Amino acid sequence: MYNQKMYALGSKRSTIREIFEYAKKRSAEIGAENVFDFSIGNPSVPAPDAVNESICRIVKETPSVALHGYTSAQGDKTVRDTIAQKFTQRFGVELSGEDLYMTCGAAASLTITFHALANEGDEFIVFAPYFPEYAVFVAGTGAKLTVLPSDEKTMLPDFAALERALNPHVKGVLINSPNNPSGVVYDGATIARFAEILERKSSEYGAPIYLISDEPYRELVYDKETVVPCVMKYYNNTIICYSYSKSLSMPGERVGYIAVNPQADDAKALYAAVCGAGRILGFVCAPALFQRVAAECDGMTADLSVYKRNRDLLYNGLTDCGFTCVYPDGAFYLFVKAAEEDAAAFCERAKKYELLLVNGADFGYKGWVRIAYCVQTERIEKALPLFKKLAEEYGL
Amino acid sequence: MYNQKMYALGSKRSTIREIFEYAKKRSAEIGAENVFDFSIGNPSVPAPDAVNESICRIVKETPSVALHGYTSAQGDKTVRDTIAQKFTQRFGVELSGEDLYMTCGAAASLTITFHALANEGDEFIVFAPYFPEYAVFVAGTGAKLTVLPSDEKTMLPDFAALERALNPHVKGVLINSPNNPSGVVYDGATIARFAEILERKSSEYGAPIYLISDEPYRELVYDKETVVPCVMKYYNNTIICYSYSKSLSMPGERVGYIAVNPQADDAKALYAAVCGAGRILGFVCAPALFQRVAAECDGMTADLSVYKRNRDLLYNGLTDCGFTCVYPDGAFYLFVKAAEEDAAAFCERAKKYELLLVNGADFGYKGWVRIAYCVQTERIEKALPLFKKLAEEYGL
Repeated sequence: MYNQKMYALGSKRSTIREIFEYAKKRSAEIGAENVFDFSIGNPSVPAPDAVNESICRIVKETPSVALHGYTSAQGDKTVRDTIAQKFTQRFGVELSGEDLYMTCGAAASLTITFHALANEGDEFIVFAPYFPEYAVFVAGTGAKLTVLPSDEKTMLPDFAALERALNPHVKGVLINSPNNPSGVVYDGATIARFAEILERKSSEYGAPIYLISDEPYRELVYDKETVVPCVMKYYNNTIICYSYSKSLSMPGERVGYIAVNPQADDAKALYAAVCGAGRILGFVCAPALFQRVAAECDGMTADLSVYKRNRDLLYNGLTDCGFTCVYPDGAFYLFVKAAEEDAAAFCERAKKYELLLVNGADFGYKGWVRIAYCVQTERIEKALPLFKKLAEEYGL
Repeated sequence: MYNQKMYALGSKRSTIREIFEYAKKRSAEIGAENVFDFSIGNPSVPAPDAVNESICRIVKETPSVALHGYTSAQGDKTVRDTIAQKFTQRFGVELSGEDLYMTCGAAASLTITFHALANEGDEFIVFAPYFPEYAVFVAGTGAKLTVLPSDEKTMLPDFAALERALNPHVKGVLINSPNNPSGVVYDGATIARFAEILERKSSEYGAPIYLISDEPYRELVYDKETVVPCVMKYYNNTIICYSYSKSLSMPGERVGYIAVNPQADDAKALYAAVCGAGRILGFVCAPALFQRVAAECDGMTADLSVYKRNRDLLYNGLTDCGFTCVYPDGAFYLFVKAAEEDAAAFCERAKKYELLLVNGADFGYKGWVRIAYCVQTERIEKALPLFKKLAEEYGL
C-alpha cells in the first residue's frame, strides 16, 4: 500500500487547523465578531503596493517566453545578483549571486538545507520553543532532531545544554530569530556565543557543525534598538534560510532563498549539495515572476506599524492583567505563561471567553501558550476585557 | 560533511546543460544564427494572452491579504473545484476538488507521488526512452527504478517485459504520454492493456500496483485523430501528475496538480498520503496567484500550430533525407535513429554541421537521438539543408 508515515502526516489535523475549524463552527453559532482566533500566523497587513505594481509592470514589459519560462534551477541570475548586492549593502557581508539559491519559500529553504547536509545517523539540534514543522522536515531526511530548552525568563538558548548535547553526529544547529513562537530576537552576544561553541566543537570533532538560521521574520522587529544580527558575520559555517512571506506579506506566492556563506568550509561544494537537494526533492526553480518581484521589492516591508501597535496593546494589556509574557522584540507572536500548570486546561478555560490560543506544547514548550497578533487591531481591543476576565478567574 | 549524494547531483552538469554551454561558446565564435541548438525542451511560443490578462485582473480585483496569502496546503478550494469540474466535463470522469492536490509543477507532482507511495524496498517501473529526472526523483524515496524497453518501431511499451518484471515489490508503473523524448502517444488499447495486466497482478499479489501517468504534454497533440486517453477511465488505481508548464507556456511559474482517482482503493487515505508527502518535502502550497490563473485558463493552450508546423517540417524533412524517425503524435520532440551504432559519435558528427542533438542514451535508449523542435520555425528551415549534408555523409 501507500506509505503509512506519509498517510499519518497527511491525515492528522494540526492543532491550529482544529482551532480554525472550531472557530468556524463557533462563528456560525455566535457571530464571527464574538470569536477571537489568535491561532494563525498569517500576515494580516497587505503587501506593499510595490509588489502589485511590480507584478503588473514586469508582466507588461517582459516578453512572455522570457517572463514565464524556466529560470536556472538556482534562480534567475539577475535576481540573485540583485538580492546578493542588497544583502551586502545591508549587512556588510560580501555575498554574490553564486551563493544564493532561490527557493519556493521558507519550508523549501529548510527541507533543501536539511537534505543537503544530512547523512545517515546525523542529528540536528533546535531549542524549544520551536516551529513544529522543523521536526517534520528533519524526519524527511532520516536524521534525528534533538530539542534543547530555552531559559524560561529570557527564552534564550540554554548554552550549557548545548555543550552537553553536542556530539560528532550533530550536523547542524537550527536557530530562528525573531522566534516563532516566543517573538524573542537573539542579539549579537548570543550569536557570538553560538559561534564560539560551534567553532570549538567543530575543531574537536574535525568536521563543521553548521549554524542554520531560519529568518522569515528578520524584518519584523519593532523597537529602534532591536537589531537582528547577520549570523554570517559571526560564524563561517552558516546557512541562512529566508522567505519573503512575512516581510512582503506574500506567503502564498512561495519565494525565498538559501544563502550559503561563501566563507564556509568548501563553500562551493556545499552550494552544489544545496542544488542537488533541491533537484531530488522536485524543486525545479522558484516561481519565476515572483523571483523578479522579490528582487525588486527586497528591502521593503509591509506596514509593520500595525504589528507594533498590536504587540504593544497586547503585551501591555496582558501584563497589566497579571499575565507573565515574554517581551516580543519581533515576529507577530506573544508567548504567555499559562495561569495554571496545564496549558491545555488553560486554553480550554480561555475558550469559554471565546479566546482561541495555541498550547505551547505544540512548540515543544509546556506551560505556555502562543497568541498570534497578526490580526486587525480592533480584535485585540475587543479581546482585552475578555483576557481581563480570564485573569480574574485565576485570581491574577 | 554535507551529503555526498546531493553534492554529486548538484555538481554534475547534465548533458543538456553541457550542450547549452557549448552552444553559447560556439555562438560567440560563429554567430548565434549559425548554431542550431535542438537540445532544450522549453516552450517557445508565448503563453495565451489570457494568462497575462488573468494575472493583472486578479491582482487588481483581489484584496492583497486574500490574494497573496497561503492557500490550504492542497490548494485553494475554488481553484480545485473549478479544475475538477473542467476535468469531468472534458474526460467524462467524475472528479471533485477533494481529489486534486495543487503542486509546484510536474517535478513536484512526481516527487510527492513517489514519496506518498514508496515504502522501503519498493520498486517503480518505467519504459525507455524516459525523462531522466524520473530516476532522480525515485532515488529520493529510496525505491528502485526498473527500466523496461519499448518497441523500436512503435516506441510502445514491451508488455511481455512488463509481465516478466512485475513482482510483489512493484508499487507503481510510470507512463508518460505524449512521451518525452519519443513524442509517441499511447492510445486507448495500450492503456487498456496496462489496466488488464496491472489488475491481474494486483489481485495476484493482494496489493494495488498504481499506474502513475505523467501528463505535462497532454494537450500538445497535432492530428485530429490523436486522442490522449484519460487513464482513470481504464484503471482505478491511477494517479495523474499534471503541470500547466507546457499547455500554458509558463514552466517558470511552477503550477500543476496531482489527481488521485476517487475510484482507487482507499482513495481518501491515498490522498492523505499525498498531502503528507507534500508536507514532508516542504511544499506548503502551490503559488497562490498562479493557482488562480491556472484555474481560469485550464483548457486553453498556447498556440500549438507553431509546434505542429515545426513537427511536420522536421519529420518530413528528415525522413526525406533518409533518417529513420518515430512519428511524434505529440509533445515537441522528434526521436531519430542515429545513422551509426554509436549515437554519441553521431551527435559529434552532427556538431560539425552545428546541429546540437541529445543522445538518446540520456533517456535510457541507445542508438537514437532527441531533437527538441520547440524553436522558431525559421531555425528548422535553416537546419534542414545541414541535416541533408549529414545524411549524405552517411550515404543515406
